[in-house]
Amino acid sequence: MNNFLNPLIETISQAIKKQQFGQEPKELYEPISYIMSLGGKRLRPVLTLLGYRLFQEDIRPAIKPAMAVETFHNFTLVHDDIMDKAPLRRGQATVHTKWNDNIAILSGDVMMIKVYDLLLDVAPELLPSVIRAFNNNATEVCEGQQKDMNFETRNDVSTDEYIDMIRQKTAVLLGLALQLGAMIAKAPEKTQQDLYQFAVDLGIGFQLKDDLLDVYGDQAKFGKQIGGDIIENKKTFLLINAVALATGSTKATLQQWIEATDFDATEKVQAVTQIYDQLGIKALTEQKMNDYFDQAFAILKQMDIGDQQKEWLSGFAQMVINREK
Amino acid sequence: MNNFLNPLIETISQAIKKQQFGQEPKELYEPISYIMSLGGKRLRPVLTLLGYRLFQEDIRPAIKPAMAVETFHNFTLVHDDIMDKAPLRRGQATVHTKWNDNIAILSGDVMMIKVYDLLLDVAPELLPSVIRAFNNNATEVCEGQQKDMNFETRNDVSTDEYIDMIRQKTAVLLGLALQLGAMIAKAPEKTQQDLYQFAVDLGIGFQLKDDLLDVYGDQAKFGKQIGGDIIENKKTFLLINAVALATGSTKATLQQWIEATDFDATEKVQAVTQIYDQLGIKALTEQKMNDYFDQAFAILKQMDIGDQQKEWLSGFAQMVINREK
Repeated sequence: MNNFLNPLIETISQAIKKQQFGQEPKELYEPISYIMSLGGKRLRPVLTLLGYRLFQEDIRPAIKPAMAVETFHNFTLVHDDIMDKAPLRRGQATVHTKWNDNIAILSGDVMMIKVYDLLLDVAPELLPSVIRAFNNNATEVCEGQQKDMNFETRNDVSTDEYIDMIRQKTAVLLGLALQLGAMIAKAPEKTQQDLYQFAVDLGIGFQLKDDLLDVYGDQAKFGKQIGGDIIENKKTFLLINAVALATGSTKATLQQWIEATDFDATEKVQAVTQIYDQLGIKALTEQKMNDYFDQAFAILKQMDIGDQQKEWLSGFAQMVINREK
Repeated sequence: MNNFLNPLIETISQAIKKQQFGQEPKELYEPISYIMSLGGKRLRPVLTLLGYRLFQEDIRPAIKPAMAVETFHNFTLVHDDIMDKAPLRRGQATVHTKWNDNIAILSGDVMMIKVYDLLLDVAPELLPSVIRAFNNNATEVCEGQQKDMNFETRNDVSTDEYIDMIRQKTAVLLGLALQLGAMIAKAPEKTQQDLYQFAVDLGIGFQLKDDLLDVYGDQAKFGKQIGGDIIENKKTFLLINAVALATGSTKATLQQWIEATDFDATEKVQAVTQIYDQLGIKALTEQKMNDYFDQAFAILKQMDIGDQQKEWLSGFAQMVINREK
């Protein structure tokens, strides 16, 4: 399978390396080159190339739209990292740490403008629908981020609200990425919608997997601090369920750890993980995650595309499902 | 003249009142309604309506593009106010003060997306060139803001660099606003370029007038604290020239005031204004400002439009030239 995806990843990596958004003032453009070069899995632009490749052999017309999606994604990282006061991104200093908040705000703003420059590459007759689809999803990403911030100070977040938040913050951009490729390839509207829904469901599963890896991942493979979410009381699917299900002394202990201000991080991670284990939170989250992966495959199965195309999408899904980082 | 501009201002005010960008989460959309409702002179959207009205009677097709320009302008205010740590905007609390920095970043981001939604209202065949023109100028606005921030820590800013900065940060958006109206009205390319240059020159004069009003304005009319730029050592055209022209004890006194950390604000404003007077900075700035206004009128004179149309543009220019706030 990777034999198929690798050239797509290579194509987008080369395009990112070659992309030059501007020169002066350098305070504005160096941070953009920096964040774009930090790497990551490039899932979103690969989805755009893949969405196009399903219908057309030569993927070159999908490269700039794929870059638009990746640039938008990186823009959200730059601004989210300011909001979250995150020091590190992919193991490197975040833009606002390496430069400062103002530069991170403004270079992020320029990235947003450049997203639309890249979208101008699509055929003019497609531009209105491409921008409309892009904007609807980009707006949802911002709404998801605001909800995520709102959740920080709320104690009554339901799992439905949580799923809706990660759908907006994370999953819809995967949906848009795949749909965009299909749009540019002029795929039928119904197929575009199926591809969108397939990738959104995959994206929700992807984020639930992320919540799981934070607690149950392999430190060496995951690359991030195991238990980071626990230390910060991040309202993940795991914590929301644990708070809802815990009773008696377990509830009290969990609450103590949540409220603790002075604690040993390792001790907190161990204690909360133990509560998760006790309450069967891992299985519960895996169940929910697999529900979404199953939904994605159900959509894929009935999709009006060739078997070879289904195999490619299935291969991409497997990569997401099996990820350990 | 105002008899002509007033209906345009009224049209855009009504459109802003009716515009609803979204509902939930309210933390994201209330700040947008708030900043958009604070008013201001609405110069930019009026320019777009005017640019259209030069060629077409019924201005309705220009309303959404005019809203796009005003929304972009307000987006820059929201983000610039975070960067400048400004507590007040138009006499009211800035978004980041009334809510917080994160909400100001994110609601600004949503405004940017909504700008492109509003631009989708233009005829599809015009969309690529509209977005391209918009993006080129929007990028320059960001570059101008970055240069303005860079100037804060530099002591060798030349007047040419300063003019270039205000051209990017302030003037090009006026140029784009007017050109956009003409674009949508399908005016000839050459006339569009003339209109752009006319409004850019007007915009540079407009900003130089702003620099002057900060020192020599009438407090009651200006609405802002007189001498605000002096108190903050803001590198305006006045200060840059004063630093360049002062010699001997005047230079030393000016330098002392610039470096002073503990001072009486009124005393500093008086002392620096006195140095400006001594060096003839007011006349020098007026000269430069009038050069740009003259250039604008020279372009207007040779423009390939009717006399009535020239009168409208001239009336707009007079309003900018005569402004006391």
